[in-house]
Amino acid sequence: MSFLETRKKQDYVIIIGCGRLGATLANTLSDNNGNVLIMDTDDSSFRRLSPNFGGLSIVGNGMDLNDLQEAQIPKASAVIAVTNHDNTNIMVAQLARDMFHVNKVIARLYDPERESVYQELGIDTICPAVLSAKEVDKFLDDFKKERRQ
Amino acid sequence: MSFLETRKKQDYVIIIGCGRLGATLANTLSDNNGNVLIMDTDDSSFRRLSPNFGGLSIVGNGMDLNDLQEAQIPKASAVIAVTNHDNTNIMVAQLARDMFHVNKVIARLYDPERESVYQELGIDTICPAVLSAKEVDKFLDDFKKERRQ
Repeated sequence: MSFLETRKKQDYVIIIGCGRLGATLANTLSDNNGNVLIMDTDDSSFRRLSPNFGGLSIVGNGMDLNDLQEAQIPKASAVIAVTNHDNTNIMVAQLARDMFHVNKVIARLYDPERESVYQELGIDTICPAVLSAKEVDKFLDDFKKERRQ
Repeated sequence: MSFLETRKKQDYVIIIGCGRLGATLANTLSDNNGNVLIMDTDDSSFRRLSPNFGGLSIVGNGMDLNDLQEAQIPKASAVIAVTNHDNTNIMVAQLARDMFHVNKVIARLYDPERESVYQELGIDTICPAVLSAKEVDKFLDDFKKERRQ
């Protein structure tokens, strides 16, 4: 029985893309004892993983069905697509959702204008510009309140 | 008296960098009747502003003191540095804070490892990877809770 086969479905998260966000997520999930596999087309991107990272890292393409099978996607409870390309993330998310019936699928989208379309498809989207704008807004709000006091 | 001179200090926000985040912020602030000026080195980046954008957009470099003066930085209550380059954002933030004594200074940093350093300098930082990781974490937490029910 392989390493992955011993793991329960509900614990297993696959991350596609080991950029800053992917690596941050992988490190956090691993620190919290989650079972995580991270895939990237570029081996050198795994340098972003913490030395304590306790998950698996494999070189592969999230749009390739064989690579997804190798990552044991049918066992995954969640797939998180966070490569630097919106089109790739959406394609991975749709494969995970429609072909492999993964329950929880999350994709990063740099382009906020596409967000609503994919939310209708049942894919949760993360849009860094929107999140950052909300955070700035919070800072400015707090600042205004401070000055009023 | 110029357009800007008629505005009160507490209302005036300068945004450096008209990428997705800068434009989203400028549009939001303008929609909420804020006085906002956005600066970018590249004229074509202003295409991201909404047709209803009611602020000013000027071509200039946020690291150039003359350009900052032209943007009337001494009148600004807040400066938000959101170009695509961490070093530029930090330089702009430090100029705004140390030379022009702007009360509220916010910088985007792609590299989360630098965040703590700049927070010590009194500069609020926005790190998209950290914000996005928190958002994914929230999605996964909600998902776990739903399954337990």
